[in-house]
Amino acid sequence: MSSRSVEEHARAVRELLDRAWAPATEHIAVPDALGRVLDGDVHAPIDLPVFRNSQMDGFAVAAADVRDTPVTLTVASTVAAGDAGADRLAPGTAVKIMTGAPIPEGADCIVPVEDTESQEGRVRILAPRRAGEFVRDRGSDVHAGDLLLAAGAHLTARHIAMFAAVGLVEVPVRRRPRVAVIATGAELVPAGTPLGPGQIHDSNSIALAASVVANGGEVTFTGRSTDTPDEFRGMLREAGADADVVITSGGVSMGEFEVVREVLTPLGGWFGHVAMQPGGPQGLTAVDGIPVLSFPGNPVSTLVSFEVFARAALRGSAGLPAAPTDRSTLTVPVTSPAGKRQFLRGRRVPGGVTLEAGPGSHLVAALARADVLIDIPEDVTTMQAGDDVRVWVL
Amino acid sequence: MSSRSVEEHARAVRELLDRAWAPATEHIAVPDALGRVLDGDVHAPIDLPVFRNSQMDGFAVAAADVRDTPVTLTVASTVAAGDAGADRLAPGTAVKIMTGAPIPEGADCIVPVEDTESQEGRVRILAPRRAGEFVRDRGSDVHAGDLLLAAGAHLTARHIAMFAAVGLVEVPVRRRPRVAVIATGAELVPAGTPLGPGQIHDSNSIALAASVVANGGEVTFTGRSTDTPDEFRGMLREAGADADVVITSGGVSMGEFEVVREVLTPLGGWFGHVAMQPGGPQGLTAVDGIPVLSFPGNPVSTLVSFEVFARAALRGSAGLPAAPTDRSTLTVPVTSPAGKRQFLRGRRVPGGVTLEAGPGSHLVAALARADVLIDIPEDVTTMQAGDDVRVWVL
Repeated sequence: MSSRSVEEHARAVRELLDRAWAPATEHIAVPDALGRVLDGDVHAPIDLPVFRNSQMDGFAVAAADVRDTPVTLTVASTVAAGDAGADRLAPGTAVKIMTGAPIPEGADCIVPVEDTESQEGRVRILAPRRAGEFVRDRGSDVHAGDLLLAAGAHLTARHIAMFAAVGLVEVPVRRRPRVAVIATGAELVPAGTPLGPGQIHDSNSIALAASVVANGGEVTFTGRSTDTPDEFRGMLREAGADADVVITSGGVSMGEFEVVREVLTPLGGWFGHVAMQPGGPQGLTAVDGIPVLSFPGNPVSTLVSFEVFARAALRGSAGLPAAPTDRSTLTVPVTSPAGKRQFLRGRRVPGGVTLEAGPGSHLVAALARADVLIDIPEDVTTMQAGDDVRVWVL
Repeated sequence: MSSRSVEEHARAVRELLDRAWAPATEHIAVPDALGRVLDGDVHAPIDLPVFRNSQMDGFAVAAADVRDTPVTLTVASTVAAGDAGADRLAPGTAVKIMTGAPIPEGADCIVPVEDTESQEGRVRILAPRRAGEFVRDRGSDVHAGDLLLAAGAHLTARHIAMFAAVGLVEVPVRRRPRVAVIATGAELVPAGTPLGPGQIHDSNSIALAASVVANGGEVTFTGRSTDTPDEFRGMLREAGADADVVITSGGVSMGEFEVVREVLTPLGGWFGHVAMQPGGPQGLTAVDGIPVLSFPGNPVSTLVSFEVFARAALRGSAGLPAAPTDRSTLTVPVTSPAGKRQFLRGRRVPGGVTLEAGPGSHLVAALARADVLIDIPEDVTTMQAGDDVRVWVL
């Protein structure tokens, strides 16, 4: 049986994934872009404000006409927001103006309504204003051609507001990597179906799909196959139709009825043992150019395999920052089998990390409580409380 | 004209919102629960593992029969994952078993296949095993009735995996607060429509909708109304049909053609001036018991109003942690009008916070670059570099 170190298998997987998940751009409507990763610099198509407008409800005047107050001016017209604008302001007159309305030529400041008294066709200005007061100049926020936001930004509501304000219909975002998920095993039944003897509920297809979405991917297919080769083969064909990458669980180990290994080995797949715990049995195949990552079927093995082999590549393709690794201090002693890199489920506590459970690969409740994987190197068999360890932040 | 402090208006708004957004539970399918907030303790409906099963491919035996090795045993049967199980193990025999398959009664350990040699109908066991080795006992992960996860958890892929593993179909999550959004203004045109004189692109409806979603809410309606009372009245009726709360922008200030104020004042709405900048003109109405929050129409005023008056209540109802406020140090001097609490757009820099732009409420690009609002109290008119300030983290 073929064997690989974690590094060797990770390198083989990454090479296929990086090709299949080569970063790509798509254009989506601005209102749908919240939470996406911008995938190109965005420049302003127009000035903002696009025309000189009033910051207040009041009167547009020439500052020279209101230098000595009080002064009474004739109101020549009224201009509201949405109006095309008023005629050029004649000296000694005022235009009644609403917030956001275009300021007529000849006017250079706004007198807020609270500093005026309206009279029949005229207005009494009570306080002087300097040129430019309460005027929003064209382009004072943004000039056409300005860089609004650089590629790589994670789009927030405020970015969406800015794109909408300059009238952008679409923006370029990083395309979500597309993943199909197939759980295999004759023992699997869906939630809601009572368990017969020897049966368990399928959690891997649901867990992998959620992991893909949580790391920026899009799930194009979720299926559950028995151990019948024809069924799995057909599902794989269907799954590969819209996906960049297929992830399978189960059917990879040394036993009999290992459907994934049985179907994919003749297609050139590598199946063997990776020196890790949990997650030892692994497979990797390129089917018509589509990488098929085959993880073991134990729920914890499946999720740890996803963390170790798929997550970083997926996030990279999605434009998301890498999931962090960190150093921490063991607060309890651990033992680990020789020759196997071990990923223990752990939890941050004051002073370092503790174990959330033993090494059993079926402890899915313990994994749910964990917030780190504690990474024990292949050649280490015992560690003491106080020792420094590498942790993968979940 | 009626005036209020920020605290007075915030209290009035919060009172209506807390009633309209009283926390509620809904049940959703486990695969759809990623990212949601658990709204009830979840207990395990079954043991996990639900039956005693094998951790390895190999042979189920009685430890007593393999105490002295090598020893050769008769293979009585084979049991695969998904099989109902094998008959009780007779002393001196072995059952060939696959990972995950039920362990027959009478067997108490598994000898991994790599420690055996298969012969015609028999197996040669090369190494002894102790009782319990490679056995996953029923309930060793979870017992039926155990608390799996407490209310309030933000659901991750690992939680989803655990729920799926115990066969849960649905889980209780906090219902998303439902919000309708209406932008008003005769000057507004949608993105993609060329601007005529005096027109601007509607950004407020898009920005408010994105803000609602980003803070755990669901947008049930998005509309854009001119300043025609009948049009706005009809849209409000439509908007209120499925929403807990309606947020409007524009039409609230002291000018003419203020459609929101005009329509809602006769319905008992409060419209007046809140001592803040930006965002001074505000309105608040209960229409058939549905709160209508009326923000001013400047894009920055709208978004700052959302931060100050709606965000905390929305997040609370959605079960999300409050958006943090913090203390920081000004790295530049600021001035502020007397009697107005000012929310300046700022950005964290080494040593504290700096201003991202001036106080102009139209500077939407500056708001997009900001990561904090700097909160200058009502009675403060000047502050120096080095002064301590409160900031709202965006």
